[in-house]
Amino acid sequence: MATLDFDNRVFAQYVCYSTLLVLQSLAIALLVIRSRVKRKIFSFPEDCSQYIVGKHHLRPTADDAQIERLRRCHLNNLENIFPFVTIGLFYVLTGPDPESASLYFRTFLLSRVIHNVALIRGLPQPTRTFSFLVGVLITCLMALPVLRQGVL
Amino acid sequence: MATLDFDNRVFAQYVCYSTLLVLQSLAIALLVIRSRVKRKIFSFPEDCSQYIVGKHHLRPTADDAQIERLRRCHLNNLENIFPFVTIGLFYVLTGPDPESASLYFRTFLLSRVIHNVALIRGLPQPTRTFSFLVGVLITCLMALPVLRQGVL
Amino acid sequence: MATLDFDNRVFAQYVCYSTLLVLQSLAIALLVIRSRVKRKIFSFPEDCSQYIVGKHHLRPTADDAQIERLRRCHLNNLENIFPFVTIGLFYVLTGPDPESASLYFRTFLLSRVIHNVALIRGLPQPTRTFSFLVGVLITCLMALPVLRQGVL
Repeated sequence: MATLDFDNRVFAQYVCYSTLLVLQSLAIALLVIRSRVKRKIFSFPEDCSQYIVGKHHLRPTADDAQIERLRRCHLNNLENIFPFVTIGLFYVLTGPDPESASLYFRTFLLSRVIHNVALIRGLPQPTRTFSFLVGVLITCLMALPVLRQGVL
Repeated sequence: MATLDFDNRVFAQYVCYSTLLVLQSLAIALLVIRSRVKRKIFSFPEDCSQYIVGKHHLRPTADDAQIERLRRCHLNNLENIFPFVTIGLFYVLTGPDPESASLYFRTFLLSRVIHNVALIRGLPQPTRTFSFLVGVLITCLMALPVLRQGVL
Repeated sequence: MATLDFDNRVFAQYVCYSTLLVLQSLAIALLVIRSRVKRKIFSFPEDCSQYIVGKHHLRPTADDAQIERLRRCHLNNLENIFPFVTIGLFYVLTGPDPESASLYFRTFLLSRVIHNVALIRGLPQPTRTFSFLVGVLITCLMALPVLRQGVL
């Protein structure tokens, strides 16, 4: 039985990649804030009160294309990192082959970095969709040995 | 003390249901993509560049009602599966009665399947709200023994 | 090596604060439903079918400002509680100083309560942004010892 112990190399790797992925998603949240302040695009009146345009306070406006990209990126990260972290933990407990585990974790992080760059910069498709699907595929590959050990 | 070990039947069951729930949420993500391609409704210019309408490229458009349903479904899954997975893990560690645990896990999965079908197909209310509330109730029932063991 | 055991005081505290945070996010979901019913603002036709206005059924409408605040609050909770729960678990396994751990967990919960009140009530900025950043900072502080133990 594999243990949740940093001496277990697969677990130590899982922890490291999961943490980097979660930090990546927080970094996007900070980019959203920076982009809002830089472009003065806010959703709520209290965010606008310190900005005066002409004789009036700035008003809340709908998000522009770049902020929409960042918000979608943030949401997409959540939608994909949560499955990876959850199923990844179960996968570690099945005591997988360290080589495969290492390959899965690294490929997943790489696929998410490519996905985020492709979405934020608007790179030509199918870069974004392909990197998204690679992430989904890895999560499914990790789910297989998990479901074999599980009990319905 | 209960252990995170597939020999612990409650844990093995928790793992199996959590994995199925996470895979269900990924399946909805894939349905969103399929629906976008089928209906040619995209959010970003780079998604449209391979489609020509008349003499022009297809343009990004706002999501239609069906895609909005799928996206809301996906988000609602995240909002409810993450609490289940988190509190469920703590609940398993409290060493619960296996019969109750099994009943909770099965009912939760069932409630989420009904919720998703009701939302995507637009079934008459209160099917959707009722199945949503059953899921919230189960999460709260699992939280009770957890909070009794926790330390503030 | 720290264990996931309620006799480990840091773990018992982590479990308690994580559970309260997850329940807080579910409470916001219920506030969204209450607000929709009270203000008769629904997104889907099947939610409107029991309401008659004049001679017609009520129609789905775009969310008003208050419901938008609640939905953003719910989403913001997910975006921040999921990182806390994930990195917090890894942090507990690094065997941290119980005093620091206790301070981090309490400050995080407090920062999220202030954030939610500030967003829902529209309190003057920078209350909301500041409390959000405190939460992000704590998650990053917990990530540091985790990354030191992790393996790339």
